[in-house]
Amino acid sequence: MASTDVAVLIGSLRKDSINRKFAHVLCELAPASLRPDIVEIGALPLYNPDLEAQMPPPWTEFRERMSRAEAVLFVTPEYNRSLPAALKNAIDVGSRPYGKSVWGGKPAAIVSVSPGAIGGFGANHHLRQSLVFLDMPAMQQPEAYIGGAEKLLDADGKLTNPGTHEFLTKYMHRFAAWIERIAAA
Amino acid sequence: MASTDVAVLIGSLRKDSINRKFAHVLCELAPASLRPDIVEIGALPLYNPDLEAQMPPPWTEFRERMSRAEAVLFVTPEYNRSLPAALKNAIDVGSRPYGKSVWGGKPAAIVSVSPGAIGGFGANHHLRQSLVFLDMPAMQQPEAYIGGAEKLLDADGKLTNPGTHEFLTKYMHRFAAWIERIAAA
Amino acid sequence: MASTDVAVLIGSLRKDSINRKFAHVLCELAPASLRPDIVEIGALPLYNPDLEAQMPPPWTEFRERMSRAEAVLFVTPEYNRSLPAALKNAIDVGSRPYGKSVWGGKPAAIVSVSPGAIGGFGANHHLRQSLVFLDMPAMQQPEAYIGGAEKLLDADGKLTNPGTHEFLTKYMHRFAAWIERIAAA
Amino acid sequence: MASTDVAVLIGSLRKDSINRKFAHVLCELAPASLRPDIVEIGALPLYNPDLEAQMPPPWTEFRERMSRAEAVLFVTPEYNRSLPAALKNAIDVGSRPYGKSVWGGKPAAIVSVSPGAIGGFGANHHLRQSLVFLDMPAMQQPEAYIGGAEKLLDADGKLTNPGTHEFLTKYMHRFAAWIERIAAA
Repeated sequence: MASTDVAVLIGSLRKDSINRKFAHVLCELAPASLRPDIVEIGALPLYNPDLEAQMPPPWTEFRERMSRAEAVLFVTPEYNRSLPAALKNAIDVGSRPYGKSVWGGKPAAIVSVSPGAIGGFGANHHLRQSLVFLDMPAMQQPEAYIGGAEKLLDADGKLTNPGTHEFLTKYMHRFAAWIERIAAA
Repeated sequence: MASTDVAVLIGSLRKDSINRKFAHVLCELAPASLRPDIVEIGALPLYNPDLEAQMPPPWTEFRERMSRAEAVLFVTPEYNRSLPAALKNAIDVGSRPYGKSVWGGKPAAIVSVSPGAIGGFGANHHLRQSLVFLDMPAMQQPEAYIGGAEKLLDADGKLTNPGTHEFLTKYMHRFAAWIERIAAA
Repeated sequence: MASTDVAVLIGSLRKDSINRKFAHVLCELAPASLRPDIVEIGALPLYNPDLEAQMPPPWTEFRERMSRAEAVLFVTPEYNRSLPAALKNAIDVGSRPYGKSVWGGKPAAIVSVSPGAIGGFGANHHLRQSLVFLDMPAMQQPEAYIGGAEKLLDADGKLTNPGTHEFLTKYMHRFAAWIERIAAA
Repeated sequence: MASTDVAVLIGSLRKDSINRKFAHVLCELAPASLRPDIVEIGALPLYNPDLEAQMPPPWTEFRERMSRAEAVLFVTPEYNRSLPAALKNAIDVGSRPYGKSVWGGKPAAIVSVSPGAIGGFGANHHLRQSLVFLDMPAMQQPEAYIGGAEKLLDADGKLTNPGTHEFLTKYMHRFAAWIERIAAA
C-alpha cells in the first residue's frame, strides 16, 4: 500500500530553529504509513495578487509541490501571539489564485513549539481559524503545545524526555489514523 | 439503515428567538439520513463542580440525552462577540465530570445567526476553539454565518429567500456527509 | 483622595477555587489607591432577554453593584479553552438591556489562573474579544497567565513563591496606573 | 500644538487595493490634531532572526520610521480568516530584535475592510491579540468592520455613502481622542 505524502511546514525560518528540530523529530517518529517531507517556505515572496500575472518561480514551485501533498503537518512557533509571517505567507500563497487553492480537503495537524510555558497556544488556534476557511479537516486531539521546548532536546536534536517521546509518537500515529479516516470517504 | 441522532443546541433562550426559528428550518431541511432533535439547555444550573456531589436533575437528564447523540448541530447567536452564556454552560456541563464528557468524537457543525451583518463570526469561532478541546471533529466548509437573519424569514418562520434555502439545504447535506465520513472509520 | 472601586469577578464558582484564592491574593497586593471588592456571580440566572420583563432580583442587584464600579478585575480559569459559563453569564447580564450596559468605559485587567501549564490563555483572550465590544479599555501589559497555580499557594492560600509575589504586586500597581490613565481624560 | 504622527499600515500590497483606498479616505477625514502618514510594508523581507546580523536595509528604514510614530492606524483586509502575511510581517519585523520593539505603548486603531459582508472580523481580532503582546493600547469602540467595501467608493475612491462618511469621520475623531487620552498620562 502506498504511503501518504505529508508536507511538513515549519513556521520559523531560523537555521537553528527549535521548531525545525522538532519537525525532524516528528518525521522520525511517524509511522510507516506516512512519508513526511519538509517543504521550505522561506523563499516565497510576500503574497500580493498583482504578482500573479508573472507568477514568481518560488510560488509556482511551492504550489506544485503542495498540490501533490495528501496531508499537512504544521510545526510552528508563536510570534507576537499569532502565526509567524512566514507561515501565514505560505498559507496565503497556497490559497490563491481563487479556485486553485492547494489546501482544500487535506487533513492537517498542528504542533506549536515554544521556549516559553504557553507552548504557542495563540499561534496554534489562529492557524486553526484559517484551516476552517481553507477546508482542511484539522485533527482536534491530541492538541500539541510544546512548551519549554529547548530543554526537551539534546545537542544533537534528540528528545531527552521519555514522556515527550511517547506523546509525540502517539501524536504521529493519531495523525496517521486521522488522515486515513478523512481519506476513507 | 438507521438514521443518525443529531442533537440540535440553540444558543438563545428567548422564546421567539430567531436562532430557534433557524434551528427549525435546519431540522426540516435535513436529509432523511439525519434525525435532528432540539435538546433544551435553558434549565441547566450554572456549571459548578461542587454540585456534582448531588447532581442537579437537569444536568443528569442533559448528560444522558447527549450521551446518546451521535452528532451535534449548534445554532447560536453572538453575545458580546462570543458565545451566549447559556450555550457555553451546556458545553461545560456536558464536558464533566472529568473522563465522562458527552462530546468526545462526535461530529459537529456550527450555524451562527444574527440580525447584524457579521453573522455571529465571533461566536462561531470561539465555539470552534472549544470543539478542539472537546475532540469534536468540526465541519469546516461550508461555513454558515447567517447575517441580516430577521429579513430571511416570514411571519411563519419560513425562509423567504431561495438562495438561503438552497444554501442551508446544501449545508445539511454536507453535514450528513461529514457525519458519515467521521463515523466510517 | 478617594480610592477607586474595583469590582473583582471570579470565573469559578467552586468554593475552594484556586481562582478565588488568587483573587484574594490580588486584593491584598493592590495599592492603597484601589479598593478591590469581590462581586459574586454564582446566583445570576442564565441570561435570557425574556426575563427582563420581570427582572430577577439577582440581576438587579448585580447590575446596580456593577454600575457603581469604576474598574473591573477578572480572575478566571479556562473551561474547554474558553471562558467559564458563569463568567460569560455575568458579562451578558451586565451588558443588557440594550443601552444600559454596566461595562462601558471601565478599565479592565485579566488574570487567568490554571493548574495546567498554559495558564488559561484561551479564556484570557476570548474575554478580551468581549471587552472590545463592551468598550472596556483592557490593560495590555503585563499579561497574566498563572500556570501551575496550585503549587504557588500554601495551605492558607498565601503565595509561596517570591517571584510570583513580585509579579502580582507589580501587576496590581500597573493596573492602578492604567485605571488612572484612562480616568484622567 | 504639534500634531500627532500617525503611521498608517495597509494590509494589502495590491496596487488598486480597496484597503489602500480606504486608508486614503481615513487620512483625509482625520482631524487636524493628527498627521497620518502611510508607511509602506511591501518591501520588507520575511522576518527571520538570522538576518539581524546584517539587517536588511528595508528593515532598518521601517524600524526607524516606526520608532518615530506616535500612534498606529491599521487598515487591513482578511486573508484566510486572519491577517495578511504582509501585515503580520511588518508587525514581526517591528517587534524585534528583543527589547527594541517599535510598538510598545503606542495607541492603535484597526479598520478592517472587505468586499464580503463580514468586514474582516477575523483579521481584526487576530490583530488585536497581537496588540496585547506588543503593549499597544487598542481603541475598543467604535469597532470598524467595513463590509461590502467596493460599493462604498466611486471610481475616484471617494465615499458615496453619507452614513459611511459620518461613521469614519467620527472614527478618526474618536481615535484622536483615544491617542490624547493615552498620551496624557
